[in-house]
Amino acid sequence: MIDVAVVGAGRIGKIHAANLVRQSGTHLKYVSDINLQAAQELATLHGAQVAEIDRILADPSIGAVLIASSTDTHADLIMRAAAAGKAIFCEKPVDLTLQRAQACAEAVKAAGVTCMIGFQRRFDPTFAAVKRRLAAGEIGDPEMLIVTSRDPGAPPVPYIKSSGGIFKDMLIHDFDIFRWILDDEAVSISATGSCLTDPVIAAADDIDSAAVTIRTRRGRLCQINTSRRAAYGYDQRFEVLGSNGMLQAGNHRPTEVTASTAGNVSYDLPEQFFLERYRAAYAIEVAHFFDAVVNRIAVLTSIEDGVKALELAEAATLSWRQNRTVELAK
Amino acid sequence: MIDVAVVGAGRIGKIHAANLVRQSGTHLKYVSDINLQAAQELATLHGAQVAEIDRILADPSIGAVLIASSTDTHADLIMRAAAAGKAIFCEKPVDLTLQRAQACAEAVKAAGVTCMIGFQRRFDPTFAAVKRRLAAGEIGDPEMLIVTSRDPGAPPVPYIKSSGGIFKDMLIHDFDIFRWILDDEAVSISATGSCLTDPVIAAADDIDSAAVTIRTRRGRLCQINTSRRAAYGYDQRFEVLGSNGMLQAGNHRPTEVTASTAGNVSYDLPEQFFLERYRAAYAIEVAHFFDAVVNRIAVLTSIEDGVKALELAEAATLSWRQNRTVELAK
Amino acid sequence: MIDVAVVGAGRIGKIHAANLVRQSGTHLKYVSDINLQAAQELATLHGAQVAEIDRILADPSIGAVLIASSTDTHADLIMRAAAAGKAIFCEKPVDLTLQRAQACAEAVKAAGVTCMIGFQRRFDPTFAAVKRRLAAGEIGDPEMLIVTSRDPGAPPVPYIKSSGGIFKDMLIHDFDIFRWILDDEAVSISATGSCLTDPVIAAADDIDSAAVTIRTRRGRLCQINTSRRAAYGYDQRFEVLGSNGMLQAGNHRPTEVTASTAGNVSYDLPEQFFLERYRAAYAIEVAHFFDAVVNRIAVLTSIEDGVKALELAEAATLSWRQNRTVELAK
Amino acid sequence: MIDVAVVGAGRIGKIHAANLVRQSGTHLKYVSDINLQAAQELATLHGAQVAEIDRILADPSIGAVLIASSTDTHADLIMRAAAAGKAIFCEKPVDLTLQRAQACAEAVKAAGVTCMIGFQRRFDPTFAAVKRRLAAGEIGDPEMLIVTSRDPGAPPVPYIKSSGGIFKDMLIHDFDIFRWILDDEAVSISATGSCLTDPVIAAADDIDSAAVTIRTRRGRLCQINTSRRAAYGYDQRFEVLGSNGMLQAGNHRPTEVTASTAGNVSYDLPEQFFLERYRAAYAIEVAHFFDAVVNRIAVLTSIEDGVKALELAEAATLSWRQNRTVELAK
Repeated sequence: MIDVAVVGAGRIGKIHAANLVRQSGTHLKYVSDINLQAAQELATLHGAQVAEIDRILADPSIGAVLIASSTDTHADLIMRAAAAGKAIFCEKPVDLTLQRAQACAEAVKAAGVTCMIGFQRRFDPTFAAVKRRLAAGEIGDPEMLIVTSRDPGAPPVPYIKSSGGIFKDMLIHDFDIFRWILDDEAVSISATGSCLTDPVIAAADDIDSAAVTIRTRRGRLCQINTSRRAAYGYDQRFEVLGSNGMLQAGNHRPTEVTASTAGNVSYDLPEQFFLERYRAAYAIEVAHFFDAVVNRIAVLTSIEDGVKALELAEAATLSWRQNRTVELAK
Repeated sequence: MIDVAVVGAGRIGKIHAANLVRQSGTHLKYVSDINLQAAQELATLHGAQVAEIDRILADPSIGAVLIASSTDTHADLIMRAAAAGKAIFCEKPVDLTLQRAQACAEAVKAAGVTCMIGFQRRFDPTFAAVKRRLAAGEIGDPEMLIVTSRDPGAPPVPYIKSSGGIFKDMLIHDFDIFRWILDDEAVSISATGSCLTDPVIAAADDIDSAAVTIRTRRGRLCQINTSRRAAYGYDQRFEVLGSNGMLQAGNHRPTEVTASTAGNVSYDLPEQFFLERYRAAYAIEVAHFFDAVVNRIAVLTSIEDGVKALELAEAATLSWRQNRTVELAK
Repeated sequence: MIDVAVVGAGRIGKIHAANLVRQSGTHLKYVSDINLQAAQELATLHGAQVAEIDRILADPSIGAVLIASSTDTHADLIMRAAAAGKAIFCEKPVDLTLQRAQACAEAVKAAGVTCMIGFQRRFDPTFAAVKRRLAAGEIGDPEMLIVTSRDPGAPPVPYIKSSGGIFKDMLIHDFDIFRWILDDEAVSISATGSCLTDPVIAAADDIDSAAVTIRTRRGRLCQINTSRRAAYGYDQRFEVLGSNGMLQAGNHRPTEVTASTAGNVSYDLPEQFFLERYRAAYAIEVAHFFDAVVNRIAVLTSIEDGVKALELAEAATLSWRQNRTVELAK
Repeated sequence: MIDVAVVGAGRIGKIHAANLVRQSGTHLKYVSDINLQAAQELATLHGAQVAEIDRILADPSIGAVLIASSTDTHADLIMRAAAAGKAIFCEKPVDLTLQRAQACAEAVKAAGVTCMIGFQRRFDPTFAAVKRRLAAGEIGDPEMLIVTSRDPGAPPVPYIKSSGGIFKDMLIHDFDIFRWILDDEAVSISATGSCLTDPVIAAADDIDSAAVTIRTRRGRLCQINTSRRAAYGYDQRFEVLGSNGMLQAGNHRPTEVTASTAGNVSYDLPEQFFLERYRAAYAIEVAHFFDAVVNRIAVLTSIEDGVKALELAEAATLSWRQNRTVELAK
């Protein structure tokens, strides 16, 4: 039985806690949050206790820490948890600066602890099926990857201001998908973007629409298109063109109802947002984390993956700001 | 907190038990099965005790009984549980004879207990959405209902022999769907069928392929086509034609991957069988049952619904055997 | 070069004329219609002459006659054209009475002329592909056929009154599809129906919604559901369940545009009505007819097929009127 | 009646000739080709005469010339036909050099003749429907355009060598789609690419896989992904994200058959190649050309559009070769 602490009792912390308590072999002992009421509510729901970080890390019974607090706390928590010898699950991104993220990765390596970054998309049944079938050679060698990644609507401006920008906040997931699906690394990246949905985003020195092209070591090409707003909902698709065919990952829908009326034939919008779309993925990733901890196997989304995705996000930001292609160290 | 007993520790009993323990406000106290090992395993998994029916019904703390044992035990258990004043959830069918099923319904009525029959399809998100949209008038008045209901493969012959025949075993669900979706009652039913997949089914005096047509009081029409075998898996669709359009309930798929190769463009087969296809429905129906018990509201699938579906199954069997249209009492 | 006469310059006559003039090796010499203005317009459009039937049949240069006049004229024209030794293409149905249709078939046989009935659906690329793949064994032995056949709206009452009823007017096509796709003959037929869209149809002693079940010699099952009105347009689908899978023929759409808005994801309604849906089929069937005439090969849709379909339509009408299953002579 | 000459009796010349002879009000008088046999065959098929360019242009009865000969002859033929006062339909591209294309545009302008470039995709029913619905405001302001444009397989190396490269040969169509759909002009373009399908293409100093990003004056973004080889056939899709939704243009299929077998659910590959996919578009564009000539209205795809698309193709080529974003004159 592994005793676990969840740090951060917000939207995503609640998801992880609920998935965690369904895992056999784990026990949610502590919940921590600077918002004490939120911490108390989540703790009560699952029969856990509220505790400060110091107490959590000092408790030798705690085997793992799930970090779901705000991004600016991630790096510090990772380093302290690593120093305390705890297994770590941390939401993306590791940090908003590459340097600190790398320092975290080194700390984790030095401590020899398990550390998994929450790139939950890799655990989505549809995405994982594409990866598996690709790996099985179903469409030969991959050549091009096209990623469509659109949110239903922009978050509030304060969120955007502290988000690190669209590339570190939204596209970080797509950069991870790119590395995972093509199993290759970028040699150059070219990004452009616009503020088309709301001028407050431009005022916050950010963009809401982005177009990225990546070239890999093997000459493969990847295009990512992103928007903070899709009126029809959360749009999460990608397709891989290979030498023998194409695999496409489509959106999921709440129901399989089709309506035919005098106007048209219609079906459901995609699952509303990430909590709905990746419900299964969140459950599977937490199970994977504990499986990795218990059976001492490598996690699928390591802190090195977190660092690499951040590297691409920084390069994309630079490319966009300087309006030029950025070469990446090989 | 309601203490609950699950009777029957087979495939479907396990599903109900797992859904039950996730319900807040309920506690799985007992598991019962003539196969003691199965009962013990399920009890152990959920921290419950193995018990005989007598002890369960005599325990005043028990508020509800979930009956998931073999069909021939349903009627007796319903009557005893009703007499003991327990709320009852029972798998379909109530019984293989209409007379006994009616007797059960009367016993339940006399005892004034909640009794729900496991027509889980009504709780399926896709099917329920069709019903909701139909009720909201999206396609005007319903006129025709076409139901496609095919299993991936025939069960073993001993199962078929004790199943009551294809109409009571398989189509019982479709008859319930018919009544629920059209919100109307049959005035005549005409059924025909063949044994096309395996002669052992004919030898067991049954058929594996059936075609049923029902006319309702308001003149609406329903056609049901069923087969014990669909090589591509579990096929569960229906469509309603209304005065202003059509609503179709399609199959669910495990993933939303599309593959384009030199041969064709393909996607996943439907969810494999009922445990996968109706996973969500099973969870929702058990939640609905406890909600009905706790809040003293009517269940969506009452024992009267169970009797009515059985009535149609008997009439369909008669129609098939006598090769004639059977009129139903109004 | 075959000189041809088109009899009937209405909607379908125009289609046939236009397809005919695109055939190399044929020449549209005459157009005939009791409506002289219609005849003149069509003749002028294609550089043909208006002529009476007598003159057409007496002209030795005429090799083929296309009959697209009203149903009550078909039988007489077929017999006269056969007697004159002309190849005949005639729209469905051969006649509204089985007896006269059989007499026509005998006259054709006696004269030894080519005679093709306009069951254009067999030439539709989608339907023909299902037939071809079925014949190639792609889904093993066919077991069940489900046909959905719905018009966008009911024709005027005078049309309905002279149509012979829904089974001879609409379902005649579906009965032909049934025989062609299953490559089998009916042993029993059971039909029911209602008047649900407009009481004037009931007043005309007809129905607008029909449900038919057919059993074949080999025990295969076919269900046909039909309505005079589908608010969303012309609905022409069928599916065949076979021992190794299923083939489905879906509707065609004018464009492949998909729209995603705040309400739903939608695409085009089916092609509006038969002229649009079967545009390709009409062209292919006329080409097939001339190919058969020139190369002296058998036509795909013979007058015997026309008689057989009518036989089913009569049996279905009887079944509906007498509310009983009708057995067919083997 | 307009007398017309077709120059070029190859694959596309045949298509245009066949569509032309179906136009009422036009008459195919001459066919010209350096391959005399090809010219003779096409002329014979349609009852036309073979003639040299000089004779064609000198014939005062000739009102229009359709240029479907090899690319290197386009500019010269356009200038001569313009000087002779003939209406001109010319296949894309106008020329492989921007300078000569501009000279053609000026010659056409000076002569005051109708000149249409064969960007047939604008006439495709699906693509045109997207444009129409976009213009009607169905999804608000367009923000992003994603174009997928893949050929089934690479043409022979000699073709590639004289093609002007992938951007002028293949993407010229996509650049036109971009300008037409977004109704906006590029301010910058960034292109990259690889040779992934066959090293002979690299040896010919070209690429087979390209990824292009364009930014427009209004800040809109466009991404185009192209490959010379898609194992599953000719892939021609695009999607527009707007402020209120998305419109997608999907592939067309030969039939609407769906097959469900033990392996998967599958449907047809896309229409094989451009002759099949754009069959309707070719007919509509030729009708549009003669409509424009007869009724003296502007053509939808002018020679200026041809020049603009070529400008983008040159800029993309430069961007790819120099690995940098290229700014376009405003």
